[in-house]
Amino acid sequence: MNKKVAVILSGCGVYDGAEIHESVLALLRLSQRGAQVQCFAPDIAQHHVINHLTGAESAESRNVLVESARIARGQVRDARELHAADFDALIVPGGFGAAKNLSDFAFRGASCAVQPDVLVAARGFAAAHKPIGLICIAPALAARIYGAGVQCTIGHDPETAAKLVDMGAEHIDCAVDDIVVDAQRKLVTTPAYMLAKTLAEAASGINKLVDRVLELA
Amino acid sequence: MNKKVAVILSGCGVYDGAEIHESVLALLRLSQRGAQVQCFAPDIAQHHVINHLTGAESAESRNVLVESARIARGQVRDARELHAADFDALIVPGGFGAAKNLSDFAFRGASCAVQPDVLVAARGFAAAHKPIGLICIAPALAARIYGAGVQCTIGHDPETAAKLVDMGAEHIDCAVDDIVVDAQRKLVTTPAYMLAKTLAEAASGINKLVDRVLELA
Repeated sequence: MNKKVAVILSGCGVYDGAEIHESVLALLRLSQRGAQVQCFAPDIAQHHVINHLTGAESAESRNVLVESARIARGQVRDARELHAADFDALIVPGGFGAAKNLSDFAFRGASCAVQPDVLVAARGFAAAHKPIGLICIAPALAARIYGAGVQCTIGHDPETAAKLVDMGAEHIDCAVDDIVVDAQRKLVTTPAYMLAKTLAEAASGINKLVDRVLELA
Repeated sequence: MNKKVAVILSGCGVYDGAEIHESVLALLRLSQRGAQVQCFAPDIAQHHVINHLTGAESAESRNVLVESARIARGQVRDARELHAADFDALIVPGGFGAAKNLSDFAFRGASCAVQPDVLVAARGFAAAHKPIGLICIAPALAARIYGAGVQCTIGHDPETAAKLVDMGAEHIDCAVDDIVVDAQRKLVTTPAYMLAKTLAEAASGINKLVDRVLELA
């Protein structure tokens, strides 16, 4: 196994950044499978900073790339440097960062836009027919990356699923320990903490997602 | 399995807080083994804030309990509320937070002191003969918790090991995928990122540590 996988992080913390457990679980499986991993993140201000103890918004400002470096132990690069030609696959963990920093889905729903550096990079993988794995709420980016008709899952929350359908995606209900595969587009999605009540549950779906992404690469 | 395990975090990020991978790996194994987990952290300012992208010290101030809540998805309590009577075991992941926030080992070496709330809580487990697992650099706390003669490992770095010996510990060299067990005191230690070059390596030792702690509980 010498497959090269890019991982796009969106900060560091479920409420304003990348979901930490999902990120580490994806990186762990990639490590156990022998993949070569490079993390990326957009070099932009976080939409906001949430005190994860109280849930309150903080007056602080933090940078997505800098905070993502916490999960990546310093080894993270600007998403503008991510080119599909250099990698075999792309994985994007969830957390509100995917819906607040990588896109504005949390605020604009079906009218959302994807952060330009992330969109260019992800469309590069799609155009090259290289697999992408989107975890948790990150499938909210799928219709913007692939266009109408893309098959994906965020679990089975009807309100969130309806927004994805409004964007042109075909939403398929999915259990926490399973994945949805759009074989034509090589897109793999799993609900993770959209449904997971424990770390072990989140791992069950994420492990399947990573394995399938590597198979498709 | 209904064992209750307390985990003490020290922030969120290897250079100024709890090592994120080690923390999530420990929580994952505990979840997979069916343990009931509650995270704790001291309600104190971090020693400092490190920009994990550049390695430079930042002018910001962050709170250890608040930042630890990122790893714990909000479910973290003040270390002053941690009483050994309520739990079967204690686990402390590493990261510089263990040596900068839970203690001042990073600055004072063998003359270090352990943060008082953490010391009281950990000594409660030792006094009740309940197992403790210390990961990575967290074994720097062992001699302060247990007194002279305690057996532990931080891997095989001679300089760091010498400081633990100066504090009264007996240091035992250990590979990244193994553990050192002080059976008399029920202390389990593993090197993790003191030696690990990959997440998979860190997981190999941490999984053994969690399993042994649960056996001893």
